Amino acid sequence: MPQPCVAVVGGTGQQGRGLAQRLALAGFPVIVGSRDERRAAAAVAGWPAAAKTADYGGAIAAADVTILAVPFASVDAIVADHHARFRPGSLVVDVIVPIVSSDGVLSLAPIAEGSAAEHLRARLPAHAHLAATFKTIPAHVLDDVARPLECDEFVCGDSAEARTRAAALVQAIAGLRAIDVGPLARARAMEHMTLLAIAVNRRFKIHDARFKVIGV
Amino acid sequence: MPQPCVAVVGGTGQQGRGLAQRLALAGFPVIVGSRDERRAAAAVAGWPAAAKTADYGGAIAAADVTILAVPFASVDAIVADHHARFRPGSLVVDVIVPIVSSDGVLSLAPIAEGSAAEHLRARLPAHAHLAATFKTIPAHVLDDVARPLECDEFVCGDSAEARTRAAALVQAIAGLRAIDVGPLARARAMEHMTLLAIAVNRRFKIHDARFKVIGV
Repeated sequence: MPQPCVAVVGGTGQQGRGLAQRLALAGFPVIVGSRDERRAAAAVAGWPAAAKTADYGGAIAAADVTILAVPFASVDAIVADHHARFRPGSLVVDVIVPIVSSDGVLSLAPIAEGSAAEHLRARLPAHAHLAATFKTIPAHVLDDVARPLECDEFVCGDSAEARTRAAALVQAIAGLRAIDVGPLARARAMEHMTLLAIAVNRRFKIHDARFKVIGV
Repeated sequence: MPQPCVAVVGGTGQQGRGLAQRLALAGFPVIVGSRDERRAAAAVAGWPAAAKTADYGGAIAAADVTILAVPFASVDAIVADHHARFRPGSLVVDVIVPIVSSDGVLSLAPIAEGSAAEHLRARLPAHAHLAATFKTIPAHVLDDVARPLECDEFVCGDSAEARTRAAALVQAIAGLRAIDVGPLARARAMEHMTLLAIAVNRRFKIHDARFKVIGV
């Protein structure tokens, strides 16, 4: 079976380009979705593995898997604008951690649905699956594509199939192990782990705190 | 300097007795606080390291450090009943994860103050310090005292001093590393990690998922 085609919407941002390059290196056909396709084409030209470029709608329409690597503040408009483009049976991957800062203290934005993932589930077409993963690995660590990751990445999703497909992406990246934690209701806990990782970074004056599960 | 005297309130429960025994083995003077002192004395007699027993009030009054290893539903009454017993400058350690189950789906109980730790901070005397830790190691793993832990334990607290004192307890236990994540506002994220550990246990049919931070 051929590898699924992965669109990375926001694929020129730090998190998006890290994911796009690592997945391209792992052998997935990758389409970088960007608002500025010329800038995307220039960026992709320097990558260690081939990737195509498209505008957001083109990338989504062509993809078996769409990774939404955009800020939480932008994602609603993108989903609304391209609602009809998500292919039936395609998988959407939420990687967003909605962090807000107040007087230098970081916290998670309150979200009526519980988490960024559940917020997206309420807005995506019903015929698209949704999983959440890649929430806890720092973007700049992802973007340093030659660097082995050697950590675990949690996966949750709206169905066993969504989780299996998302876990396959995670496992395809060198040094990464997927830990399936079940339904989308677990996404908020994953978002909290990112908050903890940032807290660790601040206190230890490092930049690359991440997690491994012991006992599995 | 002599080791601080540690009271474990609820020290005959699974989490409490695991902590009490491991801290006694690490050389701390330990007092097991129990509602049923005769039962506590019988339990302690079989432990691998000596510990004293007392009722809740006696244990709290004698302690430099009080670990509240009781259910969230019980802790308010215990703090109210023994409010005057907490010694000025003593440290209280919150280890509670307020988990609720609805149709088999576990989640954290909503808490007005944000977390069990902040809930306690609002109820303890101002002259006592508060730290939160030991929230993510499974109680039965703690209780299997011969078993090395080999994982990390997060610590947050209401002051640098509280965190340092709590971290010293964590580090004294063989195989455990303390990870200071800052203010009490981080306690909710620590409680979410326990929820994730339980989710991992369920999905992988194991009982001892816990965490290690990579990069520190």
